[in-house]
Amino acid sequence: MNDPRETLVPTLVAESVVIESDGVRILDRRRFPMEIEWVHCPTTEAVAVAIEQMVTQSSGPFFAAAGGMVLAGRVAQDADGPDERLRIVREAAARLVRTRPTNNAIRVVTEELVAVAEKAVADEAPLAAALEAAARSVGERYLELSRSLGRHAAELIPDGATVLTHCWGESYVTESFAAALRQGKDVRAIVTETRPYLQGARLTAHSLAEMGVPTTLITDGMAAHAMDQGRVTTYLTAADRITLDGHVINKVGTLQLAIAAAHFEVPYVATVHAPDARAATRSDVEIEERDGDEVLHALGHRTASELVTGWYPAFDVTPPSLVSAVVTARGRFSPFDLRSAVEPEEGR
Amino acid sequence: MNDPRETLVPTLVAESVVIESDGVRILDRRRFPMEIEWVHCPTTEAVAVAIEQMVTQSSGPFFAAAGGMVLAGRVAQDADGPDERLRIVREAAARLVRTRPTNNAIRVVTEELVAVAEKAVADEAPLAAALEAAARSVGERYLELSRSLGRHAAELIPDGATVLTHCWGESYVTESFAAALRQGKDVRAIVTETRPYLQGARLTAHSLAEMGVPTTLITDGMAAHAMDQGRVTTYLTAADRITLDGHVINKVGTLQLAIAAAHFEVPYVATVHAPDARAATRSDVEIEERDGDEVLHALGHRTASELVTGWYPAFDVTPPSLVSAVVTARGRFSPFDLRSAVEPEEGR
Repeated sequence: MNDPRETLVPTLVAESVVIESDGVRILDRRRFPMEIEWVHCPTTEAVAVAIEQMVTQSSGPFFAAAGGMVLAGRVAQDADGPDERLRIVREAAARLVRTRPTNNAIRVVTEELVAVAEKAVADEAPLAAALEAAARSVGERYLELSRSLGRHAAELIPDGATVLTHCWGESYVTESFAAALRQGKDVRAIVTETRPYLQGARLTAHSLAEMGVPTTLITDGMAAHAMDQGRVTTYLTAADRITLDGHVINKVGTLQLAIAAAHFEVPYVATVHAPDARAATRSDVEIEERDGDEVLHALGHRTASELVTGWYPAFDVTPPSLVSAVVTARGRFSPFDLRSAVEPEEGR
Repeated sequence: MNDPRETLVPTLVAESVVIESDGVRILDRRRFPMEIEWVHCPTTEAVAVAIEQMVTQSSGPFFAAAGGMVLAGRVAQDADGPDERLRIVREAAARLVRTRPTNNAIRVVTEELVAVAEKAVADEAPLAAALEAAARSVGERYLELSRSLGRHAAELIPDGATVLTHCWGESYVTESFAAALRQGKDVRAIVTETRPYLQGARLTAHSLAEMGVPTTLITDGMAAHAMDQGRVTTYLTAADRITLDGHVINKVGTLQLAIAAAHFEVPYVATVHAPDARAATRSDVEIEERDGDEVLHALGHRTASELVTGWYPAFDVTPPSLVSAVVTARGRFSPFDLRSAVEPEEGR
């Protein structure tokens, strides 16, 4: 197509993790866009440490973990015998999963790549090449799922909408905006800065602005006031996980905004490629707590009194009663009807 | 009394604005406690500019404006004739009121000091001395009102409480904690950092910790999650103004936390010396918007993409339906019963 809006892919989605011959290169999202720096990871362990240190977040760990598995495959390929090769690949997967316990995508992608490795070893096929091809393929599939999700989500974004979003929802959120723009809709954004890491101020605000969306930044406490003034038509976020009974696990702050949205009758749309078929309810999801010192700083600068301690629960849980719709790559669902979203589709 | 808890007055409340022979010295709350710096204001205009530039906030402008009136009195004393003397004093009052349109305390204190000046001029009494004595007296009365307010508020803070507060509620909030501590209660605090100026992270957290209250700092988006985990028993803030029909005008973010508190059935206690007898409802209060660039920075460091604009509504409005109790210097009131709080007391 010739519509320039078909190319609505911001920098962060287009190129954030690059698999190279000597390692995996990861864009440092802790400083972007103020500083454009890449972290070079020559080993799986270096990739794991980069994920732990929040060099990349949101779907970044998915792509980084895939890269980490490719590096493990290159080491395993030269190992002695099929058992040792698979041991190396499986250990790499386990190491990568341990980095971020709440992040389901790492588990999903490493499991898939372990299965690819098992097949390659069984077939006596070149292990590294098989893993690299599979890593690129799952990456492309990931973005295709986001585009599908975005097309479904755009139906809930009216013409003239002002969409409030929180944290950095990556291709889930950018593809939702992109699909609405491709439909010719006039769409604006209000983005919360998302302390302490400021993903909203840096990543989301930058990416939506790159796409041509008029974007206003607010602090994390201002959204209810914006709603009170009638400035918000739609609240839309990505989710790290959604349980089968409709609980949305996402960046801390999501819950507070969902409560405000319900109070002001603003619909809350939660997006995810698919609900987590292994999580029946919220107690099945481990909620990660991160270092409370982050709350005492902003981009490395001290922002708080030396006399206090910080608390940084990284995620919160929004119950289905506060969720208007769950949008997945397969369509739009009531949060109380998510088993439908994971059942095999007819005709498949 | 010998109870050391009788001295529970943090640094910021004890000494923040000092009237001196050559001007008014104002503690720079924009950097405290990371940097202890004072702004020396030799003239009323310098005091006004300091208030506009947010050198001091919360009740700081009340004390600073009183100081600015004293400086005007010193100039006026040497002026030619009573009319010119009063013109100088009245112009100073008007200039100080214009600095922060939502701040009622500046209007109240300057009106009172204009009346003092009028009386001094009529009596041919020394103008500067009269204004300085009155400024010190209104300052002492201010703190006595806060102590009274605190005693009434402490009745709503249970033993074992964890009190959530937002922004810097100055002596309203510190005296509420102090009164609860004097009652021998075990009280903890959760403080929101209060972006963009970080008054919570710097001023409130520091002051409560100075008073020996175990204090945890969170970002502005985390309070609902803390409530969801059952960590908050009471939500208590100061108010810049409370209208006669129970609308609470306070730092932006107050509303969002009040909505969350109502959702989780946590009582919200709003404190103010007295409701604003001149404001029947919210439309009678001008809501100040400040420079949106503040949202793009933290303590002078850029925190946001260069591609976006910031929005900084300084205050929001919490309706009486979300307020559990209004505590004034005279007692505890339903937010729907505030005319009782401003009617003349029996026997007075």
